[in-house]
Amino acid sequence: MSSSRFSERLYQAAEPLWLKCHEHPFLTELSAGTLSTDRFIYYLKQDYVYLIDYAKLFAIGSVKARDVQTMAKFAELLHNTLNVEMELHRQYTEKFGVSREQLEQTVPSPTTVAYTKYLLDTAAHGSLAEVVAALLPCMWSYCEIGTAFAKRPGALDHPLYREWILMYSSEEFGELTEWCIGLMDKLAEGLPEAELSRLEERFIVASKLEYMFWDMAYRLEEWPV
Amino acid sequence: MSSSRFSERLYQAAEPLWLKCHEHPFLTELSAGTLSTDRFIYYLKQDYVYLIDYAKLFAIGSVKARDVQTMAKFAELLHNTLNVEMELHRQYTEKFGVSREQLEQTVPSPTTVAYTKYLLDTAAHGSLAEVVAALLPCMWSYCEIGTAFAKRPGALDHPLYREWILMYSSEEFGELTEWCIGLMDKLAEGLPEAELSRLEERFIVASKLEYMFWDMAYRLEEWPV
Amino acid sequence: MSSSRFSERLYQAAEPLWLKCHEHPFLTELSAGTLSTDRFIYYLKQDYVYLIDYAKLFAIGSVKARDVQTMAKFAELLHNTLNVEMELHRQYTEKFGVSREQLEQTVPSPTTVAYTKYLLDTAAHGSLAEVVAALLPCMWSYCEIGTAFAKRPGALDHPLYREWILMYSSEEFGELTEWCIGLMDKLAEGLPEAELSRLEERFIVASKLEYMFWDMAYRLEEWPV
Amino acid sequence: MSSSRFSERLYQAAEPLWLKCHEHPFLTELSAGTLSTDRFIYYLKQDYVYLIDYAKLFAIGSVKARDVQTMAKFAELLHNTLNVEMELHRQYTEKFGVSREQLEQTVPSPTTVAYTKYLLDTAAHGSLAEVVAALLPCMWSYCEIGTAFAKRPGALDHPLYREWILMYSSEEFGELTEWCIGLMDKLAEGLPEAELSRLEERFIVASKLEYMFWDMAYRLEEWPV
Repeated sequence: MSSSRFSERLYQAAEPLWLKCHEHPFLTELSAGTLSTDRFIYYLKQDYVYLIDYAKLFAIGSVKARDVQTMAKFAELLHNTLNVEMELHRQYTEKFGVSREQLEQTVPSPTTVAYTKYLLDTAAHGSLAEVVAALLPCMWSYCEIGTAFAKRPGALDHPLYREWILMYSSEEFGELTEWCIGLMDKLAEGLPEAELSRLEERFIVASKLEYMFWDMAYRLEEWPV
Repeated sequence: MSSSRFSERLYQAAEPLWLKCHEHPFLTELSAGTLSTDRFIYYLKQDYVYLIDYAKLFAIGSVKARDVQTMAKFAELLHNTLNVEMELHRQYTEKFGVSREQLEQTVPSPTTVAYTKYLLDTAAHGSLAEVVAALLPCMWSYCEIGTAFAKRPGALDHPLYREWILMYSSEEFGELTEWCIGLMDKLAEGLPEAELSRLEERFIVASKLEYMFWDMAYRLEEWPV
Repeated sequence: MSSSRFSERLYQAAEPLWLKCHEHPFLTELSAGTLSTDRFIYYLKQDYVYLIDYAKLFAIGSVKARDVQTMAKFAELLHNTLNVEMELHRQYTEKFGVSREQLEQTVPSPTTVAYTKYLLDTAAHGSLAEVVAALLPCMWSYCEIGTAFAKRPGALDHPLYREWILMYSSEEFGELTEWCIGLMDKLAEGLPEAELSRLEERFIVASKLEYMFWDMAYRLEEWPV
Repeated sequence: MSSSRFSERLYQAAEPLWLKCHEHPFLTELSAGTLSTDRFIYYLKQDYVYLIDYAKLFAIGSVKARDVQTMAKFAELLHNTLNVEMELHRQYTEKFGVSREQLEQTVPSPTTVAYTKYLLDTAAHGSLAEVVAALLPCMWSYCEIGTAFAKRPGALDHPLYREWILMYSSEEFGELTEWCIGLMDKLAEGLPEAELSRLEERFIVASKLEYMFWDMAYRLEEWPV
């Protein structure tokens, strides 16, 4: 990665936050296979409602794209998320004894609301570059986590967490992430510093919310009222 | 079709307009195989840029859908339009000697601007029901035209126009149209008359613009300045 | 208030949540004049950034309004908020030793992000009725709090908190709130139950976030990373 | 004006189009006082519905502004347009025997649809710079026309057209236009050429539609179906 790539700047800015994710008990226990099932189920349910809003970022990306190729790629991402991945998500969650109905009735937690609505507001009123800067931390950090965990001795021993790790360390997911990183770089090209700072801010806030999402699941966060 | 279906009301309101489409020289000459190629090429080019904006309606539908199933269906429509149909469109247009590059460089005509931007503005600021009321006239009237022409003696004789007629009279296209009509009916259920009138107005304005689109192609419309 | 008014239903649904606001230490201490200044300053700063996003709801209301009168009223609200109220806000905050620059540099807390972005996402993709259902809890509950506090013995003794109470118990603010309640009722007329439930859900979630906003200020919430 | 200002580039690109507006019979006859009243009434009615959508650009500008000052200025423009100018518009139109009710019942013509929806789609999905590039041709060219006509011998002789010319040659309108031009320059600063070209394209298409609006009024355009 050349240092002239904007994604490199984003990575360096977010790295301390991402390291805190890696070291969060939710993830260390997940990779050690010791994470309690109730915490993981809580995570899966919130992740499901998260994913519904996250997919809308691809739809908005398709609307804001300025060439047919990018538009079509976002359409493919949206389609795959809703018609393939969410089905896998539902099947995987069933293995934890959570039915499709239970999954669909999940009420988003305050942190899920903060994260998804931050992304959607950015997408609704921002540029395509902002859409990508907002959606990238989730994808990219999952790719990092999956790849790191897949290499960690014993991390693939847990019969169920294993699947989760394999999904996010897969070649396919890596390619998708690379495409999004490449698009970020392309969209950032030649932008004035004020725009780049704004993109970086979006990326950092989303990274903070990503950390809070793991923490929320570990705390089994509930609405205070 | 029961008279209690809202789509029936829409159909009755738009029928005189659609009949004028059927009787427009562009379409009578197309079904007779006598339409001049330059008019059809003009149409294909404008239809290509039209389709790009039209696809965005599916993306916005996906964002505004209130359940995962509808969201996923719009995602599929968006994906198919951009990754399948537009490729067919490009291949078909090549048979008329128009290259992909020429197609992509098409400048939308005033009428194309009026039609697509009317639809997109409706979608951006309106309800999901308004999105569907806006996108339906194009789909539904093409289905009617395709089906009627496919039965017309001699209409399938023209080596190239034949393909166009077969596409819009296909079972697949019919099913897609039926899905959209069904969604319209479902979304209109129980709405107060003020909302229904607004939906009807969207449907009628889009139908008028549909007529103008055929007329624009026949006139080989250009920007006056 | 007739029980047939939709706003009455909203009020009854939210009442337990609003009572919890009234009883929150932030507000009991505010009305007793014993709230610590750092908590109130924290609140004023977050309220300032909140107000910027809240004002955008009026702008979106103006875009989505279906008649010129409603459009113009929202325009007036937007204008007053940005060109009158925010100036008062800045002047008031200065009395606590917080400069305009400090105010403008406020970083929204996680709870502020959750609340404002929830409102903005609702407004961006929802109907005008949803915009109003989302913005109403803040306005209406402030009106209730101001009116209740103004009558509470001693609540107007504090030299600075007094001003805050007087602002939200003013006749002008009451009329504004009445207008919004009336608009909610008008927009809800004749809507099917599925729509009304959705509006109620928006109202309830915003009311929960309203409670969390008071709590956030009392806790002097910070970003965990 | 220094040649380094982006607005200068826009002006040079649009000048031939604007000259064609100046020379259009609608405007030459208006300045000579010979324009038929039915054409001017047609124009006033369409301009009224145009203005409603045009005002929404200010609302969207307020939502997309990145600092409170710009946000507040757009709020003021929106408020003035809806609560001051449109009232003047209604009073002025009454002098031509057109009642408020007739004005409000105006059905937008195809060209009005094309123009307003082009602007609104640009605003809904584009950047703040695009919003300004889209709204500027109307404001700036009216300012040019008003100023030029006010100096033309005899142009202020017509008892009613005189008012129209005075409005758009007023100092107040000139200052507003200068503010928008200045904002355009500020927003364009440092943008890469791809962005500048896009802004220029928005400006040019809006200028073409501006020409077509005058032409539409002269032709008393009607819907073909």
